[in-house]
Amino acid sequence: MDFRFNEVTIAGGFLHDLQEKNRKVTINAVYDRFADTGRFAALDCNWKEGDEIKPHIFWDSDVAKWIEGAAYIIAKHPDAALEEKIERAIDAMEANQWEDGYLNSYYTAVEPENRFTNRDHHELYCCGHLIEAAVAYYYATGRDRFLRMMEKYVELVDRIFRVEHSAVFDTPGHEEIELALVRLYRATGKKKYLDLAAYFVNTRGTSERDKNIVHGRSYHYLGTTAYAQSHIPVREQLEADGHAVRAMYLYCAMADLYAETGDETLRKACYALFEDATTRKMHITGGLGSIRVGEAFTLAYDLPAERTYNETCASIGMMFFAQRMLEQEHKGVFADVIERQLYNGMLSGVSLDGKSFFYENPLEINVKNHVRTRFNPKEEKYPITQRVEVFKCSCCPPNLTRLFSSFERYLYHVANGVYYVDQFADSTWSEGGATVTQKTKYPQNGKVTLTFAGVKRAAVRIPGWCESYKCNVPVTVKDGYAYMEAPTTVELDFEMKPVYYSAHAEVDESAGKVALMRGPIVYCAERIDNPVNLHRLVLVPEMNATEELDPLTGLTRITVDALISAPKAGGLFQKVDNVYEKTRISLIPYYAFANRGETDMLVWCRYKD
Amino acid sequence: MDFRFNEVTIAGGFLHDLQEKNRKVTINAVYDRFADTGRFAALDCNWKEGDEIKPHIFWDSDVAKWIEGAAYIIAKHPDAALEEKIERAIDAMEANQWEDGYLNSYYTAVEPENRFTNRDHHELYCCGHLIEAAVAYYYATGRDRFLRMMEKYVELVDRIFRVEHSAVFDTPGHEEIELALVRLYRATGKKKYLDLAAYFVNTRGTSERDKNIVHGRSYHYLGTTAYAQSHIPVREQLEADGHAVRAMYLYCAMADLYAETGDETLRKACYALFEDATTRKMHITGGLGSIRVGEAFTLAYDLPAERTYNETCASIGMMFFAQRMLEQEHKGVFADVIERQLYNGMLSGVSLDGKSFFYENPLEINVKNHVRTRFNPKEEKYPITQRVEVFKCSCCPPNLTRLFSSFERYLYHVANGVYYVDQFADSTWSEGGATVTQKTKYPQNGKVTLTFAGVKRAAVRIPGWCESYKCNVPVTVKDGYAYMEAPTTVELDFEMKPVYYSAHAEVDESAGKVALMRGPIVYCAERIDNPVNLHRLVLVPEMNATEELDPLTGLTRITVDALISAPKAGGLFQKVDNVYEKTRISLIPYYAFANRGETDMLVWCRYKD
Repeated sequence: MDFRFNEVTIAGGFLHDLQEKNRKVTINAVYDRFADTGRFAALDCNWKEGDEIKPHIFWDSDVAKWIEGAAYIIAKHPDAALEEKIERAIDAMEANQWEDGYLNSYYTAVEPENRFTNRDHHELYCCGHLIEAAVAYYYATGRDRFLRMMEKYVELVDRIFRVEHSAVFDTPGHEEIELALVRLYRATGKKKYLDLAAYFVNTRGTSERDKNIVHGRSYHYLGTTAYAQSHIPVREQLEADGHAVRAMYLYCAMADLYAETGDETLRKACYALFEDATTRKMHITGGLGSIRVGEAFTLAYDLPAERTYNETCASIGMMFFAQRMLEQEHKGVFADVIERQLYNGMLSGVSLDGKSFFYENPLEINVKNHVRTRFNPKEEKYPITQRVEVFKCSCCPPNLTRLFSSFERYLYHVANGVYYVDQFADSTWSEGGATVTQKTKYPQNGKVTLTFAGVKRAAVRIPGWCESYKCNVPVTVKDGYAYMEAPTTVELDFEMKPVYYSAHAEVDESAGKVALMRGPIVYCAERIDNPVNLHRLVLVPEMNATEELDPLTGLTRITVDALISAPKAGGLFQKVDNVYEKTRISLIPYYAFANRGETDMLVWCRYKD
Repeated sequence: MDFRFNEVTIAGGFLHDLQEKNRKVTINAVYDRFADTGRFAALDCNWKEGDEIKPHIFWDSDVAKWIEGAAYIIAKHPDAALEEKIERAIDAMEANQWEDGYLNSYYTAVEPENRFTNRDHHELYCCGHLIEAAVAYYYATGRDRFLRMMEKYVELVDRIFRVEHSAVFDTPGHEEIELALVRLYRATGKKKYLDLAAYFVNTRGTSERDKNIVHGRSYHYLGTTAYAQSHIPVREQLEADGHAVRAMYLYCAMADLYAETGDETLRKACYALFEDATTRKMHITGGLGSIRVGEAFTLAYDLPAERTYNETCASIGMMFFAQRMLEQEHKGVFADVIERQLYNGMLSGVSLDGKSFFYENPLEINVKNHVRTRFNPKEEKYPITQRVEVFKCSCCPPNLTRLFSSFERYLYHVANGVYYVDQFADSTWSEGGATVTQKTKYPQNGKVTLTFAGVKRAAVRIPGWCESYKCNVPVTVKDGYAYMEAPTTVELDFEMKPVYYSAHAEVDESAGKVALMRGPIVYCAERIDNPVNLHRLVLVPEMNATEELDPLTGLTRITVDALISAPKAGGLFQKVDNVYEKTRISLIPYYAFANRGETDMLVWCRYKD
């Protein structure tokens, strides 16, 4: 089986509102932008030299992810118009699928003679996303046309890569097919797909051919195969390295293969990679991949606030990976990381109105740096200050739509007879004869009411940020979960209050600073709310925090005591003699930054203890 | 007349030692590197297509500045070998000077048909430096061959630019000829050179032709003429903008023209430009031009420590400009700025052994950032960590040699019967029948003994950093100078002690930090002396400073109390609970950084008040 598809219904609250916005606005906004830019028309494969809009090597994946997200939507909310759009896209793909099964709008139209000659040209990446779309559509509608098309393509891929080795490369430059093949296996029961997934994962990092490929300009890590995690066998990769999204998709496949085969060497590597990524290379917002060039991991504790990259897709990919680990390992730390992405570094990827997106998610904006580099921004880049409706490389928007419409997946899982409550949202879960109903206003407050029917053992995550909570039933806490026997009605209250966090001592850019969190939400200060140079603000231990409901987000806006620092004397430099003026500053949830025009922002703020 | 050439002799101490190193090591090291790279051979103008070493458009200026520096040296220390090198260079230039006076090794050899067709190709820039070299050589030796050669070239320049307008452009892309022409006027007494200087300065920013030139790739400020200060007439330029070295050379010429003509509009602009540059756009080390791209000024208070540029030549250019202002205005602030460059941001441009150089002079080095960007440093650049012996564009080394060998210029000036003591060094000054002898160990301590003979009025600068001093004679202090009547022996003691400075509140990158100075010297902490992550260090108001003579520099090394901050708990993020461990840290003069291998460094350090 695939995801927890129909077993969970999200009924209300924060996640439900996000899903509604996705369903009513974003899925259509993304469709329109994709249609405008020619991504759907490209499926007709009739481009010719001189035509204005030329297909791109990754457009099939954009369309595929959009279809996948739309499929999850129509599974819950039948929508004839949406279904029609999907069917038309499948029609076009079917009409242009080769006899031998090949399916790729770019190569078919632009250079059919060159298929499988360029490791970096995303063919298997696009194939993988199409597989995921086909699986999702099958589960949503029962229709298997698309699924059969993809099976046919996979037969070809299997023959060329695993049997003949007749492509120019052995493993794809961008991972994705591996995890997709596991989904295909789980959807069809056909073990050959699992074997092919294992083939790609096991071959990665061992192929001399792949290592010797001279990569083109688009390869940011020229000369190194760590960019695509191809430098050493995956089981030997114990540090998160290279392009962050590629890494996450590979780690997903490794976790999937462990789940299917019990291969402890994969499990060991997954734990090491998860630990390295989340305890040394992740921002407090969950952001991953701290450098623009290569969109990649760098070194431990290298977490600059402004010049980081933190691709939205990397946060989404981490949610995928952590969920797979969670379903095997049942440890709160995995669900904690999902929660961190969910409410912070992933969610910042979309605007509050659901129509525009961030690719990169910095923890600081200094508008002046765009003035500083106005003459030649190419050599010293700073994050854009406003979300945009579509990007040239538009992987993040449809990744968001398919994530939002499948939030159900992340709330619960069952293993060894234990019903796990992983995330908090108004919802109902029916599985294996049992029913769990959850009511909560999370993340606004930490009160959670769970009603169980037919559940012998349950385990509820105690969020990692939570210092103190109440529970009305006896529990045994293990690995971040509160285990309970034969629960009926369980009332929990995870105490939420504003707390200042500091970073590891080796995170240079956060030295002497703090970030505010309340429950799972990371906060930020925007200049539009605090008309003073944010770098002059100094937070203090005694917050005297006041909280008010903010119409901007529907969540809490927090106001705290602070100081504004200034030298007593004027001039460019002076003997130190700082004066600190008391003030109050207003912080909003980080994910909501940059929704009110161009303004400075920071998460990490100076602190005086 | 030209500089205070023979009137001043530097006899001992810090500046003398720098001059000796320059004379014994640097002038020859630079010659050797220039010879190796073909800069002297290029003067023979016999390059042909296919030859390995092709001349560059700026090589004449490198040679010229080297000659100028060597000339100042032989003026004081006759050196037959050095003289021979100069003479040979002049021979080659003379042999290849065109009938009509044109003199340029690049164009003559590579594209003679294209002279004066590219505003950005440095022809007048090279001409200007050659003029300065010729003037210096004339004063040093009495030989005027080179001077006459340059006069002949200038006749051509005058005809083409001022009379015929027959070049493709009206004013040069890189200023230098303007100030050089004033030197030529002062050396020869021929007013036509002053007129030509004025023509170039007055035409700049008014030429439609110049504004419409499409600049090539080498022009970092594509599309804007502010890069070369050509956007508006110079008298309307009230903010320091564009390429910092170009700016400084232009401002020098503006100050020169004011000195020669009394044009108050130029004076007003010079004051505004000096103030903007030094009170809003200058680092505490004196560094100017805070962005790599364009090597340029940016906006007020944009002074990043690590990503600044601070070209050595810009600091040198500011010394040139400030000295001109000082000689007209007699205000301590100008000499203070010279002093700041002299002991800090200019001096860091050369290694302690005199053989290698920095182009850029950052206030922070984080070696890890080279690891961070190891895969593609082109898109996110950090300053190099070690000086090099020669650069492709090698303007800084010979600029340093000519500055060092003419330090005499900056020590004193006389105006309106007042003998001004501007900088402090063991020296003797004889001018206008008067003699001033100075003895001091500055910058090691602030004791200065002056002996005057035949001086009715003198004025000694009270350094801007100095809070308290003693003087054994009555003085009237005005604009940073202590005026004294009929002085004979004057003993001053400018109290030097370590002091922490903070920056203007709008200098974001220095927020919450301090820099240490002692007298005129800015200090820095290097990791090699302080084996802990420098970003974890926190300075405190009670320094408990100890000072010891450091063999590295011959100056004071300062050790102060500090704290090392760390979160009490481990982990990537934790509820803030910092512990501060007491420690002592050791700081050295900034100019001496990066002389002991690759190591982290910072000037601005966290501070807890």
